[in-house]
Amino acid sequence: MTELDSLVKTYQTAVFQKDLEAFASIFDEKVRVFDMWGRWDYDGLPAWREMAQGWFASLGSNRDVITFHDVQIEITGGMAVLTAIVRFTAVSEKGEELRYLENRLTWVAREKAGVWKIIHQHTSGPIDFETMKVMLKR
Amino acid sequence: MTELDSLVKTYQTAVFQKDLEAFASIFDEKVRVFDMWGRWDYDGLPAWREMAQGWFASLGSNRDVITFHDVQIEITGGMAVLTAIVRFTAVSEKGEELRYLENRLTWVAREKAGVWKIIHQHTSGPIDFETMKVMLKR
Repeated sequence: MTELDSLVKTYQTAVFQKDLEAFASIFDEKVRVFDMWGRWDYDGLPAWREMAQGWFASLGSNRDVITFHDVQIEITGGMAVLTAIVRFTAVSEKGEELRYLENRLTWVAREKAGVWKIIHQHTSGPIDFETMKVMLKR
Repeated sequence: MTELDSLVKTYQTAVFQKDLEAFASIFDEKVRVFDMWGRWDYDGLPAWREMAQGWFASLGSNRDVITFHDVQIEITGGMAVLTAIVRFTAVSEKGEELRYLENRLTWVAREKAGVWKIIHQHTSGPIDFETMKVMLKR
């Protein structure tokens, strides 16, 4: 158990339940996000929260199941970094797996008054040099 | 001046001079890199050093000039994170600018015995959802 396990669990549960409040609760007000899709950066929680609102709405009756793989964590004096390969699996209302994609994910978290919040998230896939297209699966 | 300024300067100089030793000197032996191009991850300095060797060789007589923009830094108790938009400009032997591209860059560094080393680097560009191609300029 590390300080970051609860962030991982809240993230997984919040996304599965499309719970915007729970999702927003793990990020710092000033979070800077380099997200994989369509935009260079999100500065601050309001912008990032709006992204999540659009994401959850776009799922319709499907849900995203998130699993973390090859996780590495370093913690020291109130700051922590987690790196992982993260799989997003879309499942139907009936629980059928529809498709999945993978990301590299970096989280940097800080502890303030005993509470850990993510101050930076960076997600991406590697780019194929010939086609300039993103690789979505390892 | 922060602990990370010297990492930035060494990185810029090492790449401009295609100096593999100087490049490798700013990374931890166990560095984990999520690089923008062609591969999911690099685990450890030997693999990352090999990438740099190929990069420098591929430049021929050109050089890469690197500039950091929109830099944000957080430091606490022996760990630091730097995020930035980084521009790589290829210049010819005569100093002509040939082309450039931009990345989002994340560095996480740790201090050991007074020396800061990068333990994690993540670079990427955002992906256009329609084409699945990477965006190379802001």
